[in-house]
Amino acid sequence: MEQRIAVDRKKGASAGNPVKTILEWYQGENPGVLTNLARMLNHGTLAGTGKMVILPVDQGFEHGPARSFAENPAGYHPHYHFQFAIDAGCNAYAAPLGFLEAGAAEFAGEIPLILKLNNSDSLFSSSDPCPAITGSVQDALRLGCCAIGYTIYPGSSMRNQMYEDLRELTQEAKASGLAVVVWAYPRGSGLSKEGETAVDVAGYAAQVSAQLGAHVIKVKTPTAHIEQPEARKVFEKQKIPVDTMADRVRHIVQSAFNGRRILIFSGGAAKGTDEILEEIRGVRDGGGFGSIIGRNSFQRPKAEALKLLSNVMDIYLNKN
Amino acid sequence: MEQRIAVDRKKGASAGNPVKTILEWYQGENPGVLTNLARMLNHGTLAGTGKMVILPVDQGFEHGPARSFAENPAGYHPHYHFQFAIDAGCNAYAAPLGFLEAGAAEFAGEIPLILKLNNSDSLFSSSDPCPAITGSVQDALRLGCCAIGYTIYPGSSMRNQMYEDLRELTQEAKASGLAVVVWAYPRGSGLSKEGETAVDVAGYAAQVSAQLGAHVIKVKTPTAHIEQPEARKVFEKQKIPVDTMADRVRHIVQSAFNGRRILIFSGGAAKGTDEILEEIRGVRDGGGFGSIIGRNSFQRPKAEALKLLSNVMDIYLNKN
Amino acid sequence: MEQRIAVDRKKGASAGNPVKTILEWYQGENPGVLTNLARMLNHGTLAGTGKMVILPVDQGFEHGPARSFAENPAGYHPHYHFQFAIDAGCNAYAAPLGFLEAGAAEFAGEIPLILKLNNSDSLFSSSDPCPAITGSVQDALRLGCCAIGYTIYPGSSMRNQMYEDLRELTQEAKASGLAVVVWAYPRGSGLSKEGETAVDVAGYAAQVSAQLGAHVIKVKTPTAHIEQPEARKVFEKQKIPVDTMADRVRHIVQSAFNGRRILIFSGGAAKGTDEILEEIRGVRDGGGFGSIIGRNSFQRPKAEALKLLSNVMDIYLNKN
Amino acid sequence: MEQRIAVDRKKGASAGNPVKTILEWYQGENPGVLTNLARMLNHGTLAGTGKMVILPVDQGFEHGPARSFAENPAGYHPHYHFQFAIDAGCNAYAAPLGFLEAGAAEFAGEIPLILKLNNSDSLFSSSDPCPAITGSVQDALRLGCCAIGYTIYPGSSMRNQMYEDLRELTQEAKASGLAVVVWAYPRGSGLSKEGETAVDVAGYAAQVSAQLGAHVIKVKTPTAHIEQPEARKVFEKQKIPVDTMADRVRHIVQSAFNGRRILIFSGGAAKGTDEILEEIRGVRDGGGFGSIIGRNSFQRPKAEALKLLSNVMDIYLNKN
Amino acid sequence: MEQRIAVDRKKGASAGNPVKTILEWYQGENPGVLTNLARMLNHGTLAGTGKMVILPVDQGFEHGPARSFAENPAGYHPHYHFQFAIDAGCNAYAAPLGFLEAGAAEFAGEIPLILKLNNSDSLFSSSDPCPAITGSVQDALRLGCCAIGYTIYPGSSMRNQMYEDLRELTQEAKASGLAVVVWAYPRGSGLSKEGETAVDVAGYAAQVSAQLGAHVIKVKTPTAHIEQPEARKVFEKQKIPVDTMADRVRHIVQSAFNGRRILIFSGGAAKGTDEILEEIRGVRDGGGFGSIIGRNSFQRPKAEALKLLSNVMDIYLNKN
Repeated sequence: MEQRIAVDRKKGASAGNPVKTILEWYQGENPGVLTNLARMLNHGTLAGTGKMVILPVDQGFEHGPARSFAENPAGYHPHYHFQFAIDAGCNAYAAPLGFLEAGAAEFAGEIPLILKLNNSDSLFSSSDPCPAITGSVQDALRLGCCAIGYTIYPGSSMRNQMYEDLRELTQEAKASGLAVVVWAYPRGSGLSKEGETAVDVAGYAAQVSAQLGAHVIKVKTPTAHIEQPEARKVFEKQKIPVDTMADRVRHIVQSAFNGRRILIFSGGAAKGTDEILEEIRGVRDGGGFGSIIGRNSFQRPKAEALKLLSNVMDIYLNKN
Repeated sequence: MEQRIAVDRKKGASAGNPVKTILEWYQGENPGVLTNLARMLNHGTLAGTGKMVILPVDQGFEHGPARSFAENPAGYHPHYHFQFAIDAGCNAYAAPLGFLEAGAAEFAGEIPLILKLNNSDSLFSSSDPCPAITGSVQDALRLGCCAIGYTIYPGSSMRNQMYEDLRELTQEAKASGLAVVVWAYPRGSGLSKEGETAVDVAGYAAQVSAQLGAHVIKVKTPTAHIEQPEARKVFEKQKIPVDTMADRVRHIVQSAFNGRRILIFSGGAAKGTDEILEEIRGVRDGGGFGSIIGRNSFQRPKAEALKLLSNVMDIYLNKN
Repeated sequence: MEQRIAVDRKKGASAGNPVKTILEWYQGENPGVLTNLARMLNHGTLAGTGKMVILPVDQGFEHGPARSFAENPAGYHPHYHFQFAIDAGCNAYAAPLGFLEAGAAEFAGEIPLILKLNNSDSLFSSSDPCPAITGSVQDALRLGCCAIGYTIYPGSSMRNQMYEDLRELTQEAKASGLAVVVWAYPRGSGLSKEGETAVDVAGYAAQVSAQLGAHVIKVKTPTAHIEQPEARKVFEKQKIPVDTMADRVRHIVQSAFNGRRILIFSGGAAKGTDEILEEIRGVRDGGGFGSIIGRNSFQRPKAEALKLLSNVMDIYLNKN
Repeated sequence: MEQRIAVDRKKGASAGNPVKTILEWYQGENPGVLTNLARMLNHGTLAGTGKMVILPVDQGFEHGPARSFAENPAGYHPHYHFQFAIDAGCNAYAAPLGFLEAGAAEFAGEIPLILKLNNSDSLFSSSDPCPAITGSVQDALRLGCCAIGYTIYPGSSMRNQMYEDLRELTQEAKASGLAVVVWAYPRGSGLSKEGETAVDVAGYAAQVSAQLGAHVIKVKTPTAHIEQPEARKVFEKQKIPVDTMADRVRHIVQSAFNGRRILIFSGGAAKGTDEILEEIRGVRDGGGFGSIIGRNSFQRPKAEALKLLSNVMDIYLNKN
Repeated sequence: MEQRIAVDRKKGASAGNPVKTILEWYQGENPGVLTNLARMLNHGTLAGTGKMVILPVDQGFEHGPARSFAENPAGYHPHYHFQFAIDAGCNAYAAPLGFLEAGAAEFAGEIPLILKLNNSDSLFSSSDPCPAITGSVQDALRLGCCAIGYTIYPGSSMRNQMYEDLRELTQEAKASGLAVVVWAYPRGSGLSKEGETAVDVAGYAAQVSAQLGAHVIKVKTPTAHIEQPEARKVFEKQKIPVDTMADRVRHIVQSAFNGRRILIFSGGAAKGTDEILEEIRGVRDGGGFGSIIGRNSFQRPKAEALKLLSNVMDIYLNKN
């Protein structure tokens, strides 16, 4: 039996450490995955709090360059986003292959990276979308990333293709010690437009992502709409509150393994500062783990965007 | 020629041992498969009886989290189901990748696990459904599982895709000594709604599963409806009784290689306790090998659910 | 953040559970490895105590059949050893490929198996021995084993070949969720005959095994001899006690990661019962995790051997 | 042509940043390698200075547990070294497979790790040594390591085997974004005992390591002895100073691509504090990049060892 | 049938173009190999003449850094040699892995590179030497090289190992379109010291290299000594002239497929300028294709070395 020596970590040592507490939820994973989750959780302004703010810039691929960068032309330059994520104190920066290749050497070691492994452009659109796989786990390793990122569209007739591709990439990523971040964006002919951000659908998308083995899950901030009749019955019978953002976030957090998966929220389209901050207070109050803020940051002038992210982080630090 | 030594197992030694008897039906399989079947058959309250009660929790993926867990919110937590299966004395716990990853380390060695390798969400629905493959045999090995689980939808135009994927997974699983559990759920444009649980269809689905190499087959408790006209002629000509649940179960058991494959039954949607127990008496009396009870257990308060499963197991132990 | 629900395992729940405590030492491993360690630790008379008694029968290969089995001819029969391990309440039975193939189907699920992956015969002998690899990880899976076994001979000029082969097999075994048991037998031209069981050498062999990634390590009960001059200086300077078996075992347990690796002891050549039991009391008192007893069990008449193992287990249960 | 945007990093921005300057020396490598070098260079007390102090603990394997840990028995425990490296503010902790597996999950994200991929035990000794390969690049990835470590023995008849194995591991490591740390220890029948630490031999070993593609090279602090007659002629003709440690370090730094490879020094056997610190002042003054201090740290009581490393780091910070 | 079109290259167009003429000798090779040969032949001062002067710097590995670089310490810096080869107008620069990795990015596209794939250090010496393989074809591709380089030691008992390794590397290099440069250095217990540069041996080594598939062969300038008695008989009987350097070069050129393989000569140890130039006039007059000049260039001050190479090239341009 182990001979007790003073160096042993005290049991329960993780109690006061949010990052250690979070890592305990993933103890079926190998130490490489835990290390890469910790690299993100321990970086930037929110380091060590268990909260995360991630900068994602895949809109150049998804929406085209003019729609993405003309508002703030500095964003055409791939270095802009690396430097912005660093200056803003983000936990990580997520982008497709090309954007990461264009700066990963110059900014090596300065900001945790997430390689978005699939992307859709909007030169062809489909009511049942499915992104193309545009990068690999090996790319993520050679670029020094902490994680792979992947988008699923629950509600699309192509969802199974996405789930199956994700499963293969996840298995490979985990074997190499990389974390897996899933963008869960309900979309497709199975859903109404309103349903894409319905609270029941958001919770369902979070659940599906967690069941697929995601470590970090990103959903859109949900509305109070309930899309599925069977779900509506349950929400009503169980009186699940959905009136406030905090209520709705709480439901989705619960849907992601009772809060044992890192769940972060995006705000979607660019909007006003007050609106964003109010939304983020709801995310915080509902137990969300953070935000992933793209257009609302890189489409503003840098100073203004840095101010916004600083305010956002203050909310997660309970300063605001 | 073998020198007779007293240590030889007496021929027929298995006569009084239900588990040994069952394993003899699978003697074409390698010892790893037999061992993993035995791990499930020798675990829990029904250990050694040749009967099984399995806890399946894939509804979070299949129906969404609110519909699955809001009734008994403890079920949002992945550990709840591990602990419930242990406390209830189940033979095994079956779930998709994420739910098993979220507890397999913490509960290692406490409950046999079945990794459900394919799953469907209901944000998109199709009249000819086909689940996504969401896990691998390698995942099952690294998580310490006894078996893989897989759903087929006989009656769907996509059935061949499912059968062919199952065949590949089965081949790989057996080579690694894992057992194969098939959820046989007739569904799709080839069948009427009523036909999904028709007794002829259930028997057919059990036969197809057995022919595909399944070790354990799960079907829904059948109705007396007979879907296929050609089948109806035979049922009538041969006077195959289908009036009672026991009658119908007996037909399906016979259809699964004359009772030489482990055939278990699910009750489907949540229902009243008496109704469930009555159904299960029918399963037992018809020669069924057990039950797989999901929603009817995890959607009740834990104490009530434990009581229900205890009553179910008493039926299989002929105490009730 | 996780919503606290009563189902959460209480922190420190493992404190009173020896098996859980042991599994915590291996938390870098995947749940499959933990499960297979638990299968052995939770089987037989010593189930749940954190102690192990394993039956190894590789002497037919290592010493030849007559030297191994003529004394108790029942042992020629491969089933004898399976049945003996079961009847004696062992935690596991370890043997080369052929012996396991000859009974794994018949005894499926009755006793955890360890496939010895390398073996030496004595028809050719070398002062620098290196066993042949005689089985594979895939064999272990198809036979339903919990672990692979492997012998290293530290002190042989061929040691590096053994270490490198072990490394590859270990990597493959762990990826498939199997545990790794290493027989660490110092031997070869680098050591004197007396040195093979020297206390410093035994500790060194245990350390090397642990560094190579072994989960369970088997060494011979050590003598008070100290082989290496540099080690002798340290033993003397630090006054490391080596007078009693318990003292020596304590040093080796400490050498195996301060007691955080399962370390078991073999008695080697057949000897008298009292001598064996006395030795085992030393192993227990020094903090050893158990015994691996081959010749001293299968070369006695079965009844006598069962009695011996029962007495051994009583020692580990502190009844004796 | 690139449109000048204010976000561009100014050329020469790295001038004042020692880590950026160092990374520029490796610009042929992929961003993953640069990131992992940066992870080490930016960690601990010396973060950002371009200097490194690494804790290596492979002596349990190399010299045996008693010789390594009996002096300070806390070191038998694998967690001790992780915690010590963290508390001491080291840049990284290097150890063989077993020691890393035994703590990488518990300490995930707290200290950069280097997996030593080859190791020798001293139960067999050879005048022409060659370590066994005891880990893999895949192991390094799954354990979350920044780098692989590897020992070469220039001067051994087996050197080519080591160089060729290193080449393969290096190629695989770099493709996965891992850094490569080489322990260059001249030894073997091609050298006299005195020659193992001769200044010409140390410079030669550093050159060979750099030519083999090492990113970080560790040599022993050299003596003024010159081993090779042809080298002696050059040292005399060119009046290469070797009188002081700084002189000798300067030659070796120059030999490692004119100071464009990270070269660190070990002190070897345990010795007095003043002697160590004096040596390290020489390393610093000669342009060395840091120290790798094993026995001199973990064989002292923890408080004393922390004090020593603090003093060592102060030297590199030019405070002492 | 091919339709005659005016764009057809005129037959015999290559008559006046030395590079085209040379490429015709290799027309069994794929266009990638031809392209890479052309890249070297069309670079630098001698571009287009069919002559080559190559800078090789592997002495840091082969002889150690002090012996190689102390005379002209600028050579410790890996960039020095890239820049020197460019400034001197060399056709290519050849070096081991580390030296190329340390500058290939910075000098990309400025000078054709040859990756020396095997190297020997002199800390261990053997009468039957065999270099270690220290790089791969994959390394050559990722570094943007035109060719791999490889040393064989005909006369060593290890020659077959070298020939076989070369064969594998050659096959892989050619499949990837890389050229193959062989350093043919007779050496080993099969030869006397004098025999290493004997004219018969040099011719033999060139023939072996060509038979092994080399595109470019490097030998030392030969002496008039004839090593092998059987060869001597033939030289005498056929009155093969060996008195002048031009005579001897002519024999070796003839031995390399009658001049249809690019054969270049090294001068070996550093020596006086006049001696070198005289030797090179002999190479030119005997039909040699050029020189490979290492120590005689990088061990002189840069200005002096540039002057020397300029003089050498003037000889090949028939200006001197």
